[in-house]
Amino acid sequence: MSAEDPLIELRDRLRHFAAERDWDQFHSPKNLAMALSVEVAELVEHFQWLSEDASLSLPADKLLEVGEEAADVLVYLIRLADKLGIDLAAAARAKIAVNALKYPVEKSRGSIRKYTEL
Amino acid sequence: MSAEDPLIELRDRLRHFAAERDWDQFHSPKNLAMALSVEVAELVEHFQWLSEDASLSLPADKLLEVGEEAADVLVYLIRLADKLGIDLAAAARAKIAVNALKYPVEKSRGSIRKYTEL
Amino acid sequence: MSAEDPLIELRDRLRHFAAERDWDQFHSPKNLAMALSVEVAELVEHFQWLSEDASLSLPADKLLEVGEEAADVLVYLIRLADKLGIDLAAAARAKIAVNALKYPVEKSRGSIRKYTEL
Amino acid sequence: MSAEDPLIELRDRLRHFAAERDWDQFHSPKNLAMALSVEVAELVEHFQWLSEDASLSLPADKLLEVGEEAADVLVYLIRLADKLGIDLAAAARAKIAVNALKYPVEKSRGSIRKYTEL
Repeated sequence: MSAEDPLIELRDRLRHFAAERDWDQFHSPKNLAMALSVEVAELVEHFQWLSEDASLSLPADKLLEVGEEAADVLVYLIRLADKLGIDLAAAARAKIAVNALKYPVEKSRGSIRKYTEL
Repeated sequence: MSAEDPLIELRDRLRHFAAERDWDQFHSPKNLAMALSVEVAELVEHFQWLSEDASLSLPADKLLEVGEEAADVLVYLIRLADKLGIDLAAAARAKIAVNALKYPVEKSRGSIRKYTEL
Repeated sequence: MSAEDPLIELRDRLRHFAAERDWDQFHSPKNLAMALSVEVAELVEHFQWLSEDASLSLPADKLLEVGEEAADVLVYLIRLADKLGIDLAAAARAKIAVNALKYPVEKSRGSIRKYTEL
Repeated sequence: MSAEDPLIELRDRLRHFAAERDWDQFHSPKNLAMALSVEVAELVEHFQWLSEDASLSLPADKLLEVGEEAADVLVYLIRLADKLGIDLAAAARAKIAVNALKYPVEKSRGSIRKYTEL
């Protein structure tokens, strides 16, 4: 498995998982987007009362839980992209290239301003 | 680039992107979790008034926009996992294995019930 | 209590609740916004796999649970507004007036288009 | 208008607003829950890169924008509750009473722990 692209590998595992359970009927992009937002919130919940510093040094048990939530987010994101025929890696590469144009190094260094306000 | 794991490749690109702009100071897991939730909502927004059927057959321009939002979600998810030292692909594989135990094929076929209610 | 504005009454109850528990230290607007998003996701979770029709006719036990999540959303929204000095009712009245300008009856009747696309 | 309950007043205004535009067809609880999550994210976006301290002292223009987003959240929450027949104020009062049992003052003072961990 080591030579394989994990986004493809996971996509195929998830297709199989859903097919076996006859879950494709529930996996409309609309529903998957909702499920994705719910999983992200379960991740956010771990951080809501923590300081930023504390969020950087989670105890091991919390880190494991956060890892599971992050995994759920990836799972639904891959599933949603699959249903829509989106190539996630290519889309992310394109987005990073666009962001490099929106946020030139000189203008955005050390700043949280949106590109519309630079 | 074709032989490379895209999750590693994107992680490295994003590290470089943030380092060049001195943005690591803003990228606490707490803040990245918030940003992730905002990007997911921008994805959800495209589907909020659509029927499930319509969400399956987006017009080309909408599909492109949805792809950009999905890319943003992946970007922040990778960045968050990197800051926490989480191996996303391994975590997703583990989660799928756990879900296979929670949702046995026979009991969960064609059902939306949570495993706690099977 | 019947003559009182419930948004004021609830605001005061929540102030008292937090003060008694010394929770104001955690209730920064940043944290409350996160908590609000988590509560909304718990509400969304109830609807993620339901058809729109099914979402209109929840069984009594589900409706009770949804009511509890809706209450949590209101609670954190009131708390956030209080911390920022926002008059929620006045802000909502103003927003409805703005929306009436953005969405003239003739142009928006039966349409889901955003005002920027009317 | 001053003697009226704002939650009832706003509910009625929003009913009228939707009826005039023939929007009830889009306002299933499923869709309204999605819209609610999108509005909350627009609120979260204002805080994602701010420190907790900075979130407590927003400049006037940001505060106005946050107020508009908070208003949108209230609007969709009221609309969702209306569609489901939920009395928001009563549900919030009940939830506060339950929370007082879950979080006894002595045990929860100064603590962010969930009641399941007290």
